[in-house]
Amino acid sequence: MIIEIVAVGTELLLGQITNENAAKIGSRLAEAGFDVNHSVMVGDNVVREAAVLALAASRSDGVIITGGIGPTQDDLTREAMCHAFNLPMRFSETYAADLRKKWAYSGRTMPESNLRQAEYPEGAELLFNPKGSAPGLALRVNGCLVLAVPGVPEEMGFLLESEVVPRLLVHSGEAGVVKSRLLRTWGRSESQVGEMLDHVYRASANPSIAFLASAGEIKVRITAKATDASTAETMIDPVEAEIRDILGNSVFGVEDETIETVVARLLLEREWTIGTAESATGGLVAGRLTSVPGSSRFFRGAVVAYAPDLKKSLLAVASDELVSEATALEMAIGARETLSVDVGVAVVGSAGPEPLEQPAGTMVIAVATPKSARAMTRRFPGDRERVRAYCTTAALHLVRLAITETWW
Amino acid sequence: MIIEIVAVGTELLLGQITNENAAKIGSRLAEAGFDVNHSVMVGDNVVREAAVLALAASRSDGVIITGGIGPTQDDLTREAMCHAFNLPMRFSETYAADLRKKWAYSGRTMPESNLRQAEYPEGAELLFNPKGSAPGLALRVNGCLVLAVPGVPEEMGFLLESEVVPRLLVHSGEAGVVKSRLLRTWGRSESQVGEMLDHVYRASANPSIAFLASAGEIKVRITAKATDASTAETMIDPVEAEIRDILGNSVFGVEDETIETVVARLLLEREWTIGTAESATGGLVAGRLTSVPGSSRFFRGAVVAYAPDLKKSLLAVASDELVSEATALEMAIGARETLSVDVGVAVVGSAGPEPLEQPAGTMVIAVATPKSARAMTRRFPGDRERVRAYCTTAALHLVRLAITETWW
Repeated sequence: MIIEIVAVGTELLLGQITNENAAKIGSRLAEAGFDVNHSVMVGDNVVREAAVLALAASRSDGVIITGGIGPTQDDLTREAMCHAFNLPMRFSETYAADLRKKWAYSGRTMPESNLRQAEYPEGAELLFNPKGSAPGLALRVNGCLVLAVPGVPEEMGFLLESEVVPRLLVHSGEAGVVKSRLLRTWGRSESQVGEMLDHVYRASANPSIAFLASAGEIKVRITAKATDASTAETMIDPVEAEIRDILGNSVFGVEDETIETVVARLLLEREWTIGTAESATGGLVAGRLTSVPGSSRFFRGAVVAYAPDLKKSLLAVASDELVSEATALEMAIGARETLSVDVGVAVVGSAGPEPLEQPAGTMVIAVATPKSARAMTRRFPGDRERVRAYCTTAALHLVRLAITETWW
Repeated sequence: MIIEIVAVGTELLLGQITNENAAKIGSRLAEAGFDVNHSVMVGDNVVREAAVLALAASRSDGVIITGGIGPTQDDLTREAMCHAFNLPMRFSETYAADLRKKWAYSGRTMPESNLRQAEYPEGAELLFNPKGSAPGLALRVNGCLVLAVPGVPEEMGFLLESEVVPRLLVHSGEAGVVKSRLLRTWGRSESQVGEMLDHVYRASANPSIAFLASAGEIKVRITAKATDASTAETMIDPVEAEIRDILGNSVFGVEDETIETVVARLLLEREWTIGTAESATGGLVAGRLTSVPGSSRFFRGAVVAYAPDLKKSLLAVASDELVSEATALEMAIGARETLSVDVGVAVVGSAGPEPLEQPAGTMVIAVATPKSARAMTRRFPGDRERVRAYCTTAALHLVRLAITETWW
């Protein structure tokens, strides 16, 4: 069943608030097994809102409207529903009486504008909203179920669970769930991952596969629709196994596991400590490692040796090269000594924009463990910020490969 | 001029990510004087995306598309533009050659799927994207300017400023221009700044004033509309002067000047060097200082002493306290010695989530210059990530105040 989300409010278009309602509703609908093809934001304008609602109802089985049902002049969803579906406005004496009672109860005089909330398009049901004063609305038009709820997140969230999802499930006459699983990879480009998984992508519509790229890591999301959660999970399992088989060691985590939490786990399992010796990344690798809560259990410290003489005095580096594997290896090994740690990771490089011994973007990462030490040179594209961020991520990934002895 | 925003990506409809791009674009467009009537999210489906684009172009003067221009199979914006506007797909040999050069530069073989990014609807211009590999697109269709940019927030943000807003301004052909100037402040809350500037805010509709808060810094944007740029600038000048007069020393920069570039300038003016001694921020202060291109002219190094024994061995700290002004001062002074620098900045603290000697969020910053040394204790709200980020920013601001001797 196809549902459209319509968020109403000029403040959304002006970017004064982010449309978090749409994300919350979208994820809840996906879980409940509904498809969302369009999610629209429109301002507080009755003509435009009415056009948006008419289009939404014409191409969907259900429409969820958030916002525009309060008491003020710019709350126009009730009017827009009347315009869109050519319905007269009605007035609920029952609701008006309830409203008056509420205000009387709190000893205040009710501004008459509140009575706007007792209006409704003919045929609509009023939905009980204990979190606020505006009732939700449910209206069936030409086989489409239109549900209007307040834009206030707390009220929306309440009505989503108490009215919207249950009514949509009844309306659909079917039950179903959508489950997804996120695999996180590193070491291959988005296009490479896409090509390697192309036959899986093409072979399977359910579960479906999507690719997401961010900060040098490529994520693969597997999404299955089924009648219940455990069936969906069972459908995902073999696809995950196939993808892991194809991508191998480049899959480093699942769901919200970051590379720093993976490294933390690997270190804690071995009761190893880590420290960094950084030049071009200027402390960013240490910054990422210490972002993990409780990092003092595995992270001891770092030396950022930007000036060449500090590389010598603090890390006992003999090499005079600034950007070389020899220097990076000496720094990683020096970090093990100076910081008394099991794993030393070092980064030197030419982050740009000006070249430093090597062309801008050339970065060298070295990792020394109790078992061995290796270095790798890579060229990163982009500006200084991007080079340093991607190289920091790469250094953490190489630490993972070094600790698990899968790098070499 | 009316602009429509179209965000492409099934992950938006599934609520896996929130459409922050739309809010960011909406607020930037409002500032530039454009109206947004509709903002739409659509999934990775070429037929539906094409229909959304055709409708958007038919009712707007400009359309901004975010997402769907990467290299993988589910990136369908180029195809959707061709479908929507009945255009053939073209291939940019120039861009393909650039792509191949980039990959060759980093010594890797380019998967052929990357060449999808060299495709474009006939008539479109490719927009330079230094933050990623997919170029943006600019296409004029029946008087509507259609601009496609990546969905990755960093890339979108860059192209929004470098291409989207300037091209829309040209496209609008309005006699007037909109100029704005951003004043950056630190040390006062958004509501304090708002209250202090309330009479300026109320007195002036053109130039108008807006407040923006991010990462602990409060920005004041002054925007003037006029017939030409120099008139607009002249209108901004007295408002800027009045605001600076009211806010005084808390204004630290203008436009894209960051606190790290301000600190860099202050150090270079004095031919001073700087180094950091960090515990709770784990290298992030050093990371920020070295984000400035050419930072080797003023930054020498850092010691991240997470383990207490390293504070003693590397920074000659005598105090056994972990989170105290005494320890932070010893570290800042120790950094001047160990790293042979003029300015030492130290951070210790209890970043959370678990308390460390002090309640979570308690952070101590110390700065030692050739003239004096001072420490300050502050409580930062929020989670570990937020505490560390805000404290890093605060440390850089205290360095500015220490160098300019306006802290004490």
